[in-house]
Amino acid sequence: MRIIESVSEMQQQAGAWHREGKTICLVPTMGYLHSGHQALMRTAREGTDVVVASIFVNPTQFGPGEDFERYPRDLERDTRLAEQAGVDVIFAPRPREMYPEGFQTYIEVSEVTLPLCGQKRPGHFRGVTTVVTKLFNIVKPHRAIFGEKDFQQLVTIRRMVRDLNMEVEIVAHPIVRESDGLAMSSRNTYLNPEQRQVALCLSQSLETAQGMIDNGERNGEVILKKVREIVEARAGARIDYAQLAQPETLEATGALDGPCLLALAVFVGGVRLIDNRILYPAK
Amino acid sequence: MRIIESVSEMQQQAGAWHREGKTICLVPTMGYLHSGHQALMRTAREGTDVVVASIFVNPTQFGPGEDFERYPRDLERDTRLAEQAGVDVIFAPRPREMYPEGFQTYIEVSEVTLPLCGQKRPGHFRGVTTVVTKLFNIVKPHRAIFGEKDFQQLVTIRRMVRDLNMEVEIVAHPIVRESDGLAMSSRNTYLNPEQRQVALCLSQSLETAQGMIDNGERNGEVILKKVREIVEARAGARIDYAQLAQPETLEATGALDGPCLLALAVFVGGVRLIDNRILYPAK
Repeated sequence: MRIIESVSEMQQQAGAWHREGKTICLVPTMGYLHSGHQALMRTAREGTDVVVASIFVNPTQFGPGEDFERYPRDLERDTRLAEQAGVDVIFAPRPREMYPEGFQTYIEVSEVTLPLCGQKRPGHFRGVTTVVTKLFNIVKPHRAIFGEKDFQQLVTIRRMVRDLNMEVEIVAHPIVRESDGLAMSSRNTYLNPEQRQVALCLSQSLETAQGMIDNGERNGEVILKKVREIVEARAGARIDYAQLAQPETLEATGALDGPCLLALAVFVGGVRLIDNRILYPAK
Repeated sequence: MRIIESVSEMQQQAGAWHREGKTICLVPTMGYLHSGHQALMRTAREGTDVVVASIFVNPTQFGPGEDFERYPRDLERDTRLAEQAGVDVIFAPRPREMYPEGFQTYIEVSEVTLPLCGQKRPGHFRGVTTVVTKLFNIVKPHRAIFGEKDFQQLVTIRRMVRDLNMEVEIVAHPIVRESDGLAMSSRNTYLNPEQRQVALCLSQSLETAQGMIDNGERNGEVILKKVREIVEARAGARIDYAQLAQPETLEATGALDGPCLLALAVFVGGVRLIDNRILYPAK
């Protein structure tokens, strides 16, 4: 397993792979890997010559007062977990090299970044699209894998790739969950055992919502009300948002006449967790 | 000479050239070619396998009330002139293909786009950087040539390329002038014979400025005052801006202790012309 920390070394290596006709698959991460990341890496492994995982806690996607400083980091452990999952190269650039003195260029995707997390975390998606563009230009992947837990991120990246004619195939990976339903996230490590139990309200309310639809409910407001009730019944849980949205444009919708994204952000103690589910009305 | 109008055809062709180990040089233009463009194309021709000239009047870099609709277009003539200058392929995409329904992604370069034309034409550079990024992703050039007449554009593109780790070498081409000094521009065709004479005030005032420096003047304000006087002495000429700036950051400067950009935008009749010159204090 090779670890590359230099941007120019990574870029040269990627160029060499291209000249050799090798295909590259990128799994962009912020590190502190868990089984969810490993599932993405195993998917990346299938049907490509080289798997690169990037590990970079990207400062530009954190807002003031967010958890950039305390975001968990452990490159040694990450290296082990990535190797287990079939990664060939870890690209772990230093922040000073990614954002040198005078840096001033950002990618802005407009409409799809406005609602949901975009409304709650101004500047977040600008940081994401910018770093992903940089990673694409450095690692030159033919394909890149993104988890559906960050559903708005996935939609935003897809939009950017299409709009800017980037030749990268974006592959979505389903949310990977703990056995009790909690969506895997590096931020789960912030939770104490009690909060860990409270955090189940996210996945449970999403499941309840699908159950309501299966039982014929078609009123979005009724479903969102129930979701909010389930979350707010837990001591220490506070809704940041609960929204129904069209899964491609992310426009708010109340109509449940086709697949519909139910997206959820909840503070558990001081920890902000997100989860989502595509709700399917029965045929 | 081949003309490609389809984005996917251009992208596939560029991919094929890469696999064959061929180098690509791009000359991005808005068409209505003149000898200035041809000089860029001849420079492109040197030391590359394939020269692609793009011809695209890019709607996103025109503001409301600007001359997008009346910007001169003549693809047949352009084809002839490009062929003369050694271009292999003209890429002339249709606007609907470059900006399809739902398009919403833009590249924003901040500081260097704030002064000069950026201040006068809000959104202009965002349109430029976005379309250039798209062209880079479609044509996949190893090198791209930009004229120094659009000096702020050149600085902005360089900054973007560095910030986003694009592997494209940006080559600057000196301003190409008519024999009487007028900087070549497709917009010169808007000028009637009288205005054509008035327009000489741009290059003449730039030359006067260098003359003043050669004679020991080091006060930027004195030089700018003289430039403004020369322009405003001409009936029908109106200064849009006249600025001295540091040539890399484009920050306003009054100090003439090193190379300094003198940038000028002047309305002649309804036509907005720009010109610039790097002033060099004598050693």
